[in-house]
Amino acid sequence: MDLKAYIEEKRKKVDAFLDAHFRISADDQPKFGHVYEAMRYSLLAGGKRVRPVLCLAAYEACGGPADKPSALAVASALELIHTYSLIHDDLPAMDNDDLRRGRPTNHKVFGDAMAILAGDSLLTEAFLMIARASAGGVNPSVLLEISGDVAEASGARGMAGGQVLDLESEKKKISREELETVHRHKTGCLILVSVTSGAKLAGTDASQLASMRAYGESVGLAFQIADDILDVEGGAEEMGKATGGDAKKEKSTYPSILGLAESKRLAQEAMGKAVDALKGFDQRADPLRELARFIVNRKS
Amino acid sequence: MDLKAYIEEKRKKVDAFLDAHFRISADDQPKFGHVYEAMRYSLLAGGKRVRPVLCLAAYEACGGPADKPSALAVASALELIHTYSLIHDDLPAMDNDDLRRGRPTNHKVFGDAMAILAGDSLLTEAFLMIARASAGGVNPSVLLEISGDVAEASGARGMAGGQVLDLESEKKKISREELETVHRHKTGCLILVSVTSGAKLAGTDASQLASMRAYGESVGLAFQIADDILDVEGGAEEMGKATGGDAKKEKSTYPSILGLAESKRLAQEAMGKAVDALKGFDQRADPLRELARFIVNRKS
Repeated sequence: MDLKAYIEEKRKKVDAFLDAHFRISADDQPKFGHVYEAMRYSLLAGGKRVRPVLCLAAYEACGGPADKPSALAVASALELIHTYSLIHDDLPAMDNDDLRRGRPTNHKVFGDAMAILAGDSLLTEAFLMIARASAGGVNPSVLLEISGDVAEASGARGMAGGQVLDLESEKKKISREELETVHRHKTGCLILVSVTSGAKLAGTDASQLASMRAYGESVGLAFQIADDILDVEGGAEEMGKATGGDAKKEKSTYPSILGLAESKRLAQEAMGKAVDALKGFDQRADPLRELARFIVNRKS
Repeated sequence: MDLKAYIEEKRKKVDAFLDAHFRISADDQPKFGHVYEAMRYSLLAGGKRVRPVLCLAAYEACGGPADKPSALAVASALELIHTYSLIHDDLPAMDNDDLRRGRPTNHKVFGDAMAILAGDSLLTEAFLMIARASAGGVNPSVLLEISGDVAEASGARGMAGGQVLDLESEKKKISREELETVHRHKTGCLILVSVTSGAKLAGTDASQLASMRAYGESVGLAFQIADDILDVEGGAEEMGKATGGDAKKEKSTYPSILGLAESKRLAQEAMGKAVDALKGFDQRADPLRELARFIVNRKS
């Protein structure tokens, strides 16, 4: 299968959905201030859309009919949460980054106050998007469960908690186990819930869901190790952000704790586990299999 | 009826619910960093719990049976959202306030980064709380609708949008209409959704819901005018925060635009409208009627 074309097709659909959702008429613009402009700036900056694509691919692998609006809405909501986390992480009070996706970070353009509020608004809008996805004829109890799953994966016991752990472990030597805990929360939880949300939307059974969970956990781990490796090996141009930042901030990473060679081996191992978890699925899971390989071998 | 005793009873229940929800074992503490400590600090700082009390009172006025866990969960979720907004509003990048509810603000104690993440986590947790409230036997589609309502009232078209408008209108002379738009979004939307959430949870009909909406809109307006008046007339000790701050920041307020006497008249008028909206309800709406009077006549 042609993964590049598959990703491109899904990405276009997600981008069109997000663009339509966050378009606001000139008449309404003064009423809502410039927060829509700030949200759109970071949201429509050409991200890879890894989380929405994983969600849609899991949905289709579990037999969900293609292009259902409710699936697109849930997939897009995950990108809102990811984007909010980037905006807040980049703030001067946090990582203090100037460059993201090849452009000045949100607070550099709109100021700190607006960046905080744009992040808050994106996070909130994600739950609105999930709640209103029921118009597509999905069982409300499934959407309510997904809404809870996404909240759990994003909050203090998930992504935000991981960010706290990350801040607290800066300039400290941490063990491999501690690093894994940081990463599982900071990145893994949202990747995992992207996969399980897609599966639940498709109405999958408990056994398939368990396989999807195993896939999501391994892919999340592979993603984070690959990210750490890219921060060492990638150029700023390909990455669209400053690289080598982890070392500068004395952050513990897989390469800094285990070395580059062992990190690469681990990433391949996690990728292998992810593919193995899909043994029971037919060719409709091929995009998920290819995505696992892509996540580890990508150059940006 | 004894409103003070009513509020005290509801407040105790909400506080107990929040305390239990945000208790984390010593074993789990290192895993989740100190974000729970930061969340608890602001959440359990003795707020008035206006939004949860309004939600529970509306729920009971519409015939909801007292003390249902699902109602308590939704009511408490509204307090999480209110608390997150206070933490973020107090940040140096925003209003830069040092004192809140009689204590140093969250970022003064935990630092800016942790305050941002504690706010993010509280906002996220609110949607988790609503999603998991279905365990109480509530219809999931009602909870999903409430989740969407709360998100809409809190995000870019509601509270966060109002905060943006407020920031953008600082040091500018704005009209009374513009001021009303700011306040309706910044404060009114969350107060209104507190009332309608309670009503929807009780399974109210369309006509009762319309009355509740009229009550919620008027009470929200009355609340904000009263807040502006208190910022002029209240002492820092009663308010637990610096007063006179609006004038110092050259913020437009009801007193600054309309004068103190006219502002007081408007607050009384809004209160009257709120009470009128409840004409069709029996004595179970007495707490709502008394709450409207309390909101306008309170001293802090």
